[in-house]
Amino acid sequence: MSAPRVDTELLWASLMHSASIGATKQGGLCRLALSDTDRQIRDWFAAACASLGGDVTVDRIGTQYARFAGTVPSLPPIAMGSHLDTQPTGGRFDGVLGVLGALEVMRTLRAAGVPTRHDVMVINWTNEEGARFAPAMVASGVFAGVFPLETALSFTDADGISIGDAVRAIGYDGPIMPGAVGLAAYFELHIEQGPVLEQAKCDIGVVTGVQGMRWFDATVTGQPCHAGTTPMAMRHDPLQAAAAMVRDDVARIGESDPGRSLATIGRFQALPGARNTVPAEVRFSVDLRHPDGAALDAMERALRASLPPRAALHGCALGLDRIWESPSVSFAPACVTAVRAAAASLGLRHRDIVSGAGHDAVYVARVAPTAMIFTPCLNGVSHHPAESITPAQAACGADVLLRAVLEYDAMAV
Amino acid sequence: MSAPRVDTELLWASLMHSASIGATKQGGLCRLALSDTDRQIRDWFAAACASLGGDVTVDRIGTQYARFAGTVPSLPPIAMGSHLDTQPTGGRFDGVLGVLGALEVMRTLRAAGVPTRHDVMVINWTNEEGARFAPAMVASGVFAGVFPLETALSFTDADGISIGDAVRAIGYDGPIMPGAVGLAAYFELHIEQGPVLEQAKCDIGVVTGVQGMRWFDATVTGQPCHAGTTPMAMRHDPLQAAAAMVRDDVARIGESDPGRSLATIGRFQALPGARNTVPAEVRFSVDLRHPDGAALDAMERALRASLPPRAALHGCALGLDRIWESPSVSFAPACVTAVRAAAASLGLRHRDIVSGAGHDAVYVARVAPTAMIFTPCLNGVSHHPAESITPAQAACGADVLLRAVLEYDAMAV
Repeated sequence: MSAPRVDTELLWASLMHSASIGATKQGGLCRLALSDTDRQIRDWFAAACASLGGDVTVDRIGTQYARFAGTVPSLPPIAMGSHLDTQPTGGRFDGVLGVLGALEVMRTLRAAGVPTRHDVMVINWTNEEGARFAPAMVASGVFAGVFPLETALSFTDADGISIGDAVRAIGYDGPIMPGAVGLAAYFELHIEQGPVLEQAKCDIGVVTGVQGMRWFDATVTGQPCHAGTTPMAMRHDPLQAAAAMVRDDVARIGESDPGRSLATIGRFQALPGARNTVPAEVRFSVDLRHPDGAALDAMERALRASLPPRAALHGCALGLDRIWESPSVSFAPACVTAVRAAAASLGLRHRDIVSGAGHDAVYVARVAPTAMIFTPCLNGVSHHPAESITPAQAACGADVLLRAVLEYDAMAV
Repeated sequence: MSAPRVDTELLWASLMHSASIGATKQGGLCRLALSDTDRQIRDWFAAACASLGGDVTVDRIGTQYARFAGTVPSLPPIAMGSHLDTQPTGGRFDGVLGVLGALEVMRTLRAAGVPTRHDVMVINWTNEEGARFAPAMVASGVFAGVFPLETALSFTDADGISIGDAVRAIGYDGPIMPGAVGLAAYFELHIEQGPVLEQAKCDIGVVTGVQGMRWFDATVTGQPCHAGTTPMAMRHDPLQAAAAMVRDDVARIGESDPGRSLATIGRFQALPGARNTVPAEVRFSVDLRHPDGAALDAMERALRASLPPRAALHGCALGLDRIWESPSVSFAPACVTAVRAAAASLGLRHRDIVSGAGHDAVYVARVAPTAMIFTPCLNGVSHHPAESITPAQAACGADVLLRAVLEYDAMAV
């Protein structure tokens, strides 16, 4: 395929302009959804799209759509996008690369005079991060019918301000009903937010899906007693039981399918937390992930089978509840193929990868053929001011996005 | 030895009267040091001692001394005592048994007309618990010269009220300088606050000393990362390292000398504590105890030798600080012998035991020959409303206290 290349310097300048709106002293970004800095970057993004000939509209939850006409008006649009909001201590590229990379794709196609059959659309989804308004990925969720619009508009931030009020406050309460426009396909470029591509010395990750996730709360209940008066042999110490679960059960489950299975304990606390008292109980979280639902089932079975006898061995009781789950997502083979072909045509080192984190693409995939493109990021760090990519990495990602859209445009009926 | 026996019903009535002053709905006591309920029990105790012919004085930190004349005025007094303050969710016997048991010993000796060569003194130490004013055992510490009086009077509670102010507020700022009166000996009756005597079916513990204690703070620092994007093999998870320390290092050190060595982790927390983030660090406490100082040294050496390589194995760093220590105490052989002989003369099942908890006797032992007497308590529970002993157990303890004082009175020059 012959296709133009994105201008690395223009893309980087665009990313650095974004990095100036909500910049933090630590070198990152704090641009919470629907804040005044979010309004500033939205205004700039809309103007940039309009200057390239895009038709910019806004839906009722503030998501921006910039539509560029193709040659066959009857075809639904092929969309690219991500989000411009950030975590409070976020980096400069999470989400931003996907939106501004798509903007550069459009600039490049227009400058080179490359037509597309489908309309091409650049989307900036509202409140992907979930940092100001929980949950995350609200607008793409509404788009996909996961949340009713009115429910989503009623979600509030820590100050009690609703999404609906916040959208109005910055003048981004548009007339479009989310989901009213069907998409031919959706491609999202994003930083990996993990270390795999960097360590594998790959330029591009061809994202084949998003792994399934399940969250559990565990409570190990023992018998609190005085650290100075209770012989070791007479104790029912929930911390000893829980430490064995960490080492011998959860870690093994995480290592059961190397490179695919993940098991993480992020919360872990002994209570009541007195230095001279054997704890009464230990509470911890378990996060299990796997790209394959059946394998995730097996991991959950292993967890449920191994923890209770471990507790009993220490004379303790166990409570184990699954509190949340997100099924695994397999992206559309046609879209994944387009991404893989795009990376190959550019001679880039690429590999298939499953996304470990959630993205707008997870929800969009429910209503449109979808795939994602990952670029490596420095040390796999994200949600942190140290989040970093190089101009060349950004351009590689945008080039793959451009070619994937053209690939899909050529093959889709 | 022929000696009178304490009246079980009178002792129990006295204990139950105490249990009515500061009683909690849960069946325990909340009688914080120098509170109004503490004033009430002090007034009652002073009146009871005076009615038996005791000369009741108060020192500058509020400790009460009830002195009963012996036949040889030149001899220093033999003291019995403990404390009448409690934990906020305390039981009815911790401390109280030692003071009111001593009161019943005096009532019994007076009623039977049994003279002693030495004066005999009953002491109620101020603020043993350290619950309202930290640290614990303040007044006995001042008595023994561990804390300067003015320093101790300046210790404040959570509301900023100093011990000095609180002592004045309840009218217990006496004229006596703590430590002004030298003691021939000190005997403290106390509930065991542990399960050993009950499990061994013993009536009495002959307390030969108090174990040494050392407190450590450990911090294991790893590398926080996203639970969904970081393969297990690329993690530097401080919780995995710390769990191995709990299981493989601290537990082994605690079990190194069965029945004597103790190792406890009461505080343990993973930070920042997000479900989907591998922790950045884990902080935990270590409490090591052993009756023998050299053995405790060896336990500390084992801790310092084993934790750093364990951290390194997981790619983590370790911080380990000793933040407090209390040397082991060996009670005076003559006093211990008097307690053992007293238990034997009563035909009680007894065994030597080392106290695992701190008591006023720990500090008093620095300035006077000292020993303690333990009674079993139900399930070893203390510092809890469920703390419980039987009237017979209370009387056995007081009988041993009475005979130990008479034994010591007879043998001491």
